[in-house]
Amino acid sequence: MESIAEMMARRARLLGPNVATFYDTPVHLVRGKGVWLWDVDGRKYLDCYNNVPHVGHCHPKVVEAISRQAATLNTHTRYLHSGILDYLDALMTRFDARLTSAIMVCSGSEANDVALRIAQAVSGKTGVISTDRTYHGNTTAVSQLSVRKPPIGGYGGHVRHVKAPDSLRPLNGTGGAEFAAAFTHEVRAAVQSLQDSEFGVSALMICPFFANEGFPDLPPGFLDGAIRAVRDAGGLIIADEVQPGFGRLGSHFWGHERMGFVPDVVTIGKPMGNGHPVAAVVAGHDTLAAFRNAFGYFNTFGGNPVSCAAASAVLEVIDAEGLVENAFEVGEYARARLRELAGHYPVIADVRGAGLFFGAEMVLDEAQTPATAFTRRVVEGMRQRGILLNSGGLGEATLKIRPPMVFSRENADLLVDTLADVLAETPVIA
Amino acid sequence: MESIAEMMARRARLLGPNVATFYDTPVHLVRGKGVWLWDVDGRKYLDCYNNVPHVGHCHPKVVEAISRQAATLNTHTRYLHSGILDYLDALMTRFDARLTSAIMVCSGSEANDVALRIAQAVSGKTGVISTDRTYHGNTTAVSQLSVRKPPIGGYGGHVRHVKAPDSLRPLNGTGGAEFAAAFTHEVRAAVQSLQDSEFGVSALMICPFFANEGFPDLPPGFLDGAIRAVRDAGGLIIADEVQPGFGRLGSHFWGHERMGFVPDVVTIGKPMGNGHPVAAVVAGHDTLAAFRNAFGYFNTFGGNPVSCAAASAVLEVIDAEGLVENAFEVGEYARARLRELAGHYPVIADVRGAGLFFGAEMVLDEAQTPATAFTRRVVEGMRQRGILLNSGGLGEATLKIRPPMVFSRENADLLVDTLADVLAETPVIA
Repeated sequence: MESIAEMMARRARLLGPNVATFYDTPVHLVRGKGVWLWDVDGRKYLDCYNNVPHVGHCHPKVVEAISRQAATLNTHTRYLHSGILDYLDALMTRFDARLTSAIMVCSGSEANDVALRIAQAVSGKTGVISTDRTYHGNTTAVSQLSVRKPPIGGYGGHVRHVKAPDSLRPLNGTGGAEFAAAFTHEVRAAVQSLQDSEFGVSALMICPFFANEGFPDLPPGFLDGAIRAVRDAGGLIIADEVQPGFGRLGSHFWGHERMGFVPDVVTIGKPMGNGHPVAAVVAGHDTLAAFRNAFGYFNTFGGNPVSCAAASAVLEVIDAEGLVENAFEVGEYARARLRELAGHYPVIADVRGAGLFFGAEMVLDEAQTPATAFTRRVVEGMRQRGILLNSGGLGEATLKIRPPMVFSRENADLLVDTLADVLAETPVIA
Repeated sequence: MESIAEMMARRARLLGPNVATFYDTPVHLVRGKGVWLWDVDGRKYLDCYNNVPHVGHCHPKVVEAISRQAATLNTHTRYLHSGILDYLDALMTRFDARLTSAIMVCSGSEANDVALRIAQAVSGKTGVISTDRTYHGNTTAVSQLSVRKPPIGGYGGHVRHVKAPDSLRPLNGTGGAEFAAAFTHEVRAAVQSLQDSEFGVSALMICPFFANEGFPDLPPGFLDGAIRAVRDAGGLIIADEVQPGFGRLGSHFWGHERMGFVPDVVTIGKPMGNGHPVAAVVAGHDTLAAFRNAFGYFNTFGGNPVSCAAASAVLEVIDAEGLVENAFEVGEYARARLRELAGHYPVIADVRGAGLFFGAEMVLDEAQTPATAFTRRVVEGMRQRGILLNSGGLGEATLKIRPPMVFSRENADLLVDTLADVLAETPVIA
């Protein structure tokens, strides 16, 4: 059997350098089922991290839908096929009545790339506002919104970054309405800056759960002032639901519903096909028309019958198995248990999240210094004990937990009990 | 059963306006097998157009590979999996030894978007040269290369379009070496223009078969002068093999081999997974490293185990069934029969192509005026008789024929015999 080192060498040769893996010793996976993954040595892992296998790894209903359609017909949307129409009819019942139409694509990056152009077509402007800790995808255009590494080709000057909301360290030192007011103030300044530039305001692109920003605790209505500022300037609100969508947050099917607003454009991706490459851009008919009329967009793979079969099966399983309700209940339970644990470990400064997207932020001191190295050690300790999770947010010091939606109370107990063991043996040192 | 009109209304509502379909009366397909497609009324069509189902619609080996892997494990490349490594090891044997490594993505558009940035990372420049009749994909960055509709957001000024080679109407009125010299001259002027601008030369992006330009008859070496001009200026050669790749041209596995050059970057897509959304960017290790080191690229779906299983099965079937040889033989046979037909129909000005990517250009007069409307009628007539094909090239007046690679002599006979019938009854009027 090929060793981990041999596989890593093959990766370096075939994929190029700097191709990230998770964990000090990468995991060589060979099988998945529900919330479980198995490595090549037969070791079993509880998957507490992967949001793409939304209804569980290798869900038989999704596998069957893919297999059946792949054996029947797979072609593109220049022929008529009921698959894409039936899927979108089902999908649209999950959205506010103002969101009626969609473009199907292959990845969240493609979806966000289209979304940015929809906003340009409607507004006639090109300036975009995003947060300073976000990630919306990897195309040339979308990578302009990230600050992780400067995009190749350089920044275009049309993006304004606003400080990501941080409920543990609110901008003005307070919570509540003033916390929201501070964010609104940031967005207003960005709007003004774009209006004073050659670019103007086309869109605010935002994950309504601020998933990459460490999913701060935000009250419904938190974004209202910011949204008003962007719309008053003629800009569109693009909600990137690639991470929080499809019921993951438990209380609502979409992150924007939980925050209490209706976006102009919604992008969806990762969980949509349970791993099959499918994504979409959803908007009102006229909004989409502005893009469709200005630009002859066609996506060869987008909306193909197999992708639509996979996506339809995912929607059906979410309902049939009550997975949104499960996300709510198990998420609440897991967070209650984590809060109990936090009472014993001051390093856990905050337990937060919604449904099955949650975590715990680790800090070193009362100044809330991110416990980056400590969190790293906890993540590795969990992996050693067969629990897969990771970290994100400020200083990568927030445990990021977003398991398949079939995660049970029993799974949550195993997660928290194991975390207690790991915390007990991991010294809190910088 | 839902009527065509009802489906079209549902499409307009759910997909927005201007979503193109093929043919005056769109085809509602429900089943495919090999070279055959069936519509909802049970009518059978010979598919002479679709290059995505490369080894035939619903090939059982590909379906089985997808079904098996989807039931076993589907995750991403931050875990180790042998699927991507085994696939790329197999794929790299098809390339010149200088092309060693790859980034796997979901679509040809994503591949070309990455390819443009690889060229930027290596060259430090941003200017791109492409032809004035090309199409390389639909991301914001890649759509800058198309002239069909102005990209939303406007042109960036960094693209120079050179006149597409046209073997029926060579630039300098002659063929042979002077034809190539004229193209080289165009590219040299574009290089100079970019060097005189703020952008500099990063790449020539080109389909080595000029698929969207009407696949002109070009001798090996035709591109040598143009390639030298770009490389002398520090630019890279990106070969977009999304259409000609995977043996379609019969004589070679890749279009660039047939033209006798080794690109710096190759993009592959459509046929790679026989319809499963998978694509890739192939380059030398150091070339890829320049991009990987400058930019933390990760693609959630790219290189997932199911995509790799589909792509591996496609490579295996191509070999097991001798499909490259078949493309050569059946393509030669079909073109010989088309040339015979052209002897009776002066409207057919040229029969050309390679392997199973070929067609016939229709002109109205000795001035070679494209017979656009006539060709449209022929395409519709063929569809009425159960043969699916389409047109492209200058004035959309070149029949474009690129069936699944399992196309047989018998299929070619049916194609040409039916075309004879359609030509006999279609009046040649503008």
